[in-house]
Amino acid sequence: MARRTLTPEPLTAGAFEAFGDVIETRGHQGLPINDGQALRFHDLAAIDVLAEEGRVLLNIFRARPGPAPIRVRMMERHPLSSQAFVPLAATPFLILVAPPGANVAPAALRLFKSDGRQGVNYHRGVWHHPLLALERDAEFLVVDRGGPGTNCDVWEIDEADEVTLRS
Amino acid sequence: MARRTLTPEPLTAGAFEAFGDVIETRGHQGLPINDGQALRFHDLAAIDVLAEEGRVLLNIFRARPGPAPIRVRMMERHPLSSQAFVPLAATPFLILVAPPGANVAPAALRLFKSDGRQGVNYHRGVWHHPLLALERDAEFLVVDRGGPGTNCDVWEIDEADEVTLRS
Repeated sequence: MARRTLTPEPLTAGAFEAFGDVIETRGHQGLPINDGQALRFHDLAAIDVLAEEGRVLLNIFRARPGPAPIRVRMMERHPLSSQAFVPLAATPFLILVAPPGANVAPAALRLFKSDGRQGVNYHRGVWHHPLLALERDAEFLVVDRGGPGTNCDVWEIDEADEVTLRS
Repeated sequence: MARRTLTPEPLTAGAFEAFGDVIETRGHQGLPINDGQALRFHDLAAIDVLAEEGRVLLNIFRARPGPAPIRVRMMERHPLSSQAFVPLAATPFLILVAPPGANVAPAALRLFKSDGRQGVNYHRGVWHHPLLALERDAEFLVVDRGGPGTNCDVWEIDEADEVTLRS
C-alpha cells in the first residue's frame, strides 16, 4: 500500500514542455493586426490530429465534477493525436499527466493547475487524466481527432496505489 | 450616397447556415463521457484548413476595439480556409458577413450578435469583417490555417456606401 497525495505545481510552458503546450498569451508577443484593432498571439499549440485519416474536431466539454477529494483511478492516452482543452469562462482546472511510455508509474505523475486563462494541449501519447474541472458546468473548448482507428488507451491505477489530488 | 445602418439579428444556426457554423452547446445533445463526469458536445464546426498544404493553427486574438459607432470600410475572405472565433470570457461580439462571391454588395450584408457563449466558424470564401469585439481586451480562441499561398482577399466598401453598425 502506497499513499500519495499530489499538490499542484504552477503551469508554465517550461515545466509542461515534456507533456504538451500551454495555450496562453503570457510569454508570447502579440502581433498587431486588423489595423491595430486586435493582437494576434500566433500558433500556440501543435495540433496533431491528422494521422491515419484523422480530421480536426472542435467540441465543447461541460464538466460534471465528482465529490472531493479527487481519487485517481485511471489515466488515458491518445496514441494517434494531440488533445487540447481551453476553458471558456476562465475557470481554473487541474492537469494530471505522466510521460509517454508503456505504463504509468505513480511516482511519475505530475499535477499542474491552470489559472483559468491557460489551456493545455496534450501531445500525442502523453498519459493524462480526463478533464479535472473544479467547478460544475465549467465549459472547455476541446480540439481533438475524428476518424478511424482506436485512439484511446486506458491505464488502471493499481488499487494499492492510493493517489489523491489536492486542488 | 447610400446610408445604411445595420442592427444585429440573433445568432442562430439556421440564420447563419449560409455563412458558417455557430459553435455552441444550445441545440446539441451532450454525450456523457468520462464515467459521467463530463458532457461532450461533439464536432461543432467544419474546420477546413488543410487545402494546399495547410495546417491547423490555434491562436488567441485580443481585441482593441475602436470608437463607436462602427463604420464598415472593408470586408475580407479566406479563399483557402475556414476561420473560427470562440470568446474566452463569455464576451458578446458582432459578426458581419456577406455571401461568397466576386464582390460584396452592401445590401447583402448581414449583422449578427453572439451572446458571448456562441462562437462562429466562417466557411471558406465567406466575406466577413475582422473581429468586432465590443469590449476592450476581450480574448478569442481562433482556429485558422497556416501554410503557403495567399489566404486573405480584401474588399473595400465604396466611400459612397456609408455602412454603420449598431451593437
